[in-house]
Amino acid sequence: MADLRRAGPAGLNLLSASEAAAQIAAKKITSEALVSDCIARIEARNPALHAWAFVDRNIALAQARARDKEPSRGVLHGVPVGIKDVLDTSDMPTAYGSKLYAGHRPSADTACVALLRLAGAVILGKTATTEFATPVPIGVRNPHDLERSPGVSSSGSAASVADYHVPAALGTQTGGSVIRPSTYCGLFGYKASLAGLDRGGIRQLRPTLDTLGFMVRAFDDIGLIRRALTAARPTSTPTRRPKLGVCRTPQWSMAKPEIVQALEQAERRLGQSAELVPVDLPREFDGILDSFRIIANVEGATALETEMRDHLDGMNRWLKETAAMMKTTTEADYERAQAHAIRCRNALLAVLAGLDGIITPAASSESPRNLTEIEDSSFNSLWTLMHGPCITIPAFTGPNGMPVGLQVVGAIGADDATIALAGWVARELGDIPQALAA
Amino acid sequence: MADLRRAGPAGLNLLSASEAAAQIAAKKITSEALVSDCIARIEARNPALHAWAFVDRNIALAQARARDKEPSRGVLHGVPVGIKDVLDTSDMPTAYGSKLYAGHRPSADTACVALLRLAGAVILGKTATTEFATPVPIGVRNPHDLERSPGVSSSGSAASVADYHVPAALGTQTGGSVIRPSTYCGLFGYKASLAGLDRGGIRQLRPTLDTLGFMVRAFDDIGLIRRALTAARPTSTPTRRPKLGVCRTPQWSMAKPEIVQALEQAERRLGQSAELVPVDLPREFDGILDSFRIIANVEGATALETEMRDHLDGMNRWLKETAAMMKTTTEADYERAQAHAIRCRNALLAVLAGLDGIITPAASSESPRNLTEIEDSSFNSLWTLMHGPCITIPAFTGPNGMPVGLQVVGAIGADDATIALAGWVARELGDIPQALAA
Repeated sequence: MADLRRAGPAGLNLLSASEAAAQIAAKKITSEALVSDCIARIEARNPALHAWAFVDRNIALAQARARDKEPSRGVLHGVPVGIKDVLDTSDMPTAYGSKLYAGHRPSADTACVALLRLAGAVILGKTATTEFATPVPIGVRNPHDLERSPGVSSSGSAASVADYHVPAALGTQTGGSVIRPSTYCGLFGYKASLAGLDRGGIRQLRPTLDTLGFMVRAFDDIGLIRRALTAARPTSTPTRRPKLGVCRTPQWSMAKPEIVQALEQAERRLGQSAELVPVDLPREFDGILDSFRIIANVEGATALETEMRDHLDGMNRWLKETAAMMKTTTEADYERAQAHAIRCRNALLAVLAGLDGIITPAASSESPRNLTEIEDSSFNSLWTLMHGPCITIPAFTGPNGMPVGLQVVGAIGADDATIALAGWVARELGDIPQALAA
Repeated sequence: MADLRRAGPAGLNLLSASEAAAQIAAKKITSEALVSDCIARIEARNPALHAWAFVDRNIALAQARARDKEPSRGVLHGVPVGIKDVLDTSDMPTAYGSKLYAGHRPSADTACVALLRLAGAVILGKTATTEFATPVPIGVRNPHDLERSPGVSSSGSAASVADYHVPAALGTQTGGSVIRPSTYCGLFGYKASLAGLDRGGIRQLRPTLDTLGFMVRAFDDIGLIRRALTAARPTSTPTRRPKLGVCRTPQWSMAKPEIVQALEQAERRLGQSAELVPVDLPREFDGILDSFRIIANVEGATALETEMRDHLDGMNRWLKETAAMMKTTTEADYERAQAHAIRCRNALLAVLAGLDGIITPAASSESPRNLTEIEDSSFNSLWTLMHGPCITIPAFTGPNGMPVGLQVVGAIGADDATIALAGWVARELGDIPQALAA
């Protein structure tokens, strides 16, 4: 795993969000100095990474100077955050990864961006995303290896955080768009419960799939950013021996050797202090990814109704395929797919009732050498459809030196408890990523 | 207070959401029978109340029959809910209370509506709201006295629940639009923390003000509906003696005699088992309602940018006044108002850190004899701007026999704890509303 700790002039871009917030609060550093270092790092590295859709140093520095002049607004006072360019910002263009919206200027912030500002955050810029957050890559690079994928669709959010441009960036996940980029780039990634973070103001919303999340380099930053967005109180870590389900999922045959190894190593290490229980998802889950695709197609085509009607020719292959599949998809198919998802959700809740959480792969491989092809997201779509919180922990290094995460999944609405559990898991696995054999 | 317990043919419309859900789960009643009774009640009473913007018995009954045929989806399986007509529904028109949108058919559900459906709820219909949820009444009647106000802007939601058309209805609050209609109509009303319920898919969103909430007749239904929307776990009620702030607010001079009395009676009764602490809001709060109005104007004018640009002539006096005030409002004014609100929020959080919650009036009077004039919302706008959860408890009856609520306010993000506290307060105050002298 490449050491990416290269600093801007004063080295402040190396700070985590929690460290930066504490040092600003203690007046040891200014937000302006921090943001300057972040911008210096972006200017040095973005030409190779293509992680940003929009950064304007004047807009970012003006916010930082304003924060330096006033009393603390909240837990993120003066801390820069990147925003996936599917989320509206009132002071920066928002293109949703689409040339149809190049230069589009939303009149208001998405609620999550407004909430970050109320907590004192500096909105540093907009991170690059795929076209309408669909899974077709757009050439953003993985900072650990420029020939490898940073994951989609929150590609720029993951690449920029991993490369020390910002300590944290918001993303969204419809299939695997927060967790997969996070594991590929060696980050902690948190995808909330479906309704766990406020989705107010998100355009083109797929109401039962699109989920907010974010990626950070330091575990403690998960709780900090979540607190800024929800005022959630931290939950204490499990005091008794946790009971963890180990789920290989019905997609286990997709798992590459490093993923098989990673889960085995996690079992070995966590088994010393947790009770581990194999979780076989019930028969109910047969065909669940087909139901996922139907729901994703129908909600996606609805959310992008006018854009797809008028501009399909210029759109990527995923959107064209969606349009084609829509021709044979009926309302009854959608209803059946939703009923199927609901049955699986209830079956999973019954499984989770006896557990503190589930560990499962975060992706089917380490980051592949791929900058153009649609990648497998079978270890993510399933959990997105289940609506519970997912956290990936960068605990391993694959045969090509790329990061490999371990995913922790919890029950819907149990975000804070699942974050606390993931913190326990992360401590047990240790700070140094374990190397997996080739 | 008028006894409104008049039933549909089988009397099922008298059930609370919790009772209905339990009886459907136990197969004692069908959703179809319940929904039929609700519709019968609506057909009998809506011509006098004007509480509904849209109800189609076939759409409602088809949902009920579908729920009766399948296994339970979730905690609201088969239970009908009314939806304020500012929230999009994929199967019913949504007009946002505006003639510009008469017959408008959204292509997707708002997230909160989608979440209700996933929990098994029957979307019964759309409840009447004022034009774009602004405070100008539109002739909805209070079921307790048809010459009196049901409150705005979630007028139809409150009137329909109070009159036993549905056990629960969703609303939104920008100034006082959930709490005031609830107290005027004798209901439990819950306005969430700003980000406490998922605002995904709300059109014309004012990102730092518009808040979701709902009204119910039975206290337990607050937790039930919240659970459907968030999967939140109930919090246990305070076991030790609670510590409650009593806040008369800087707007105390607006309080009519019955409100002064109500708060005194609440103090007398709660003082027996709780520690009561007078809360004087700090000097910081001077002029806070001016800051509220600036934020509401700017965010409202932004959210309705094209509508107000093209159609202001046909709009109500509030929107015209907003447009006029916008001519002299600068971006710096907005920034200052937000900074003021943030300082107050932090000051209030410091006060709440030593308390379990605050009790305060829910409105400045019982429901007035008014169907046309803009009403005072000074006991609500303040708390909306503070972003914390608010719950009103229908504990009193005013001199004209109209309901009077007591409001419980908590810290941002502490929704579940504040609901538990409100449950304790409600039990202490007793089930029978106390009559206040004229």
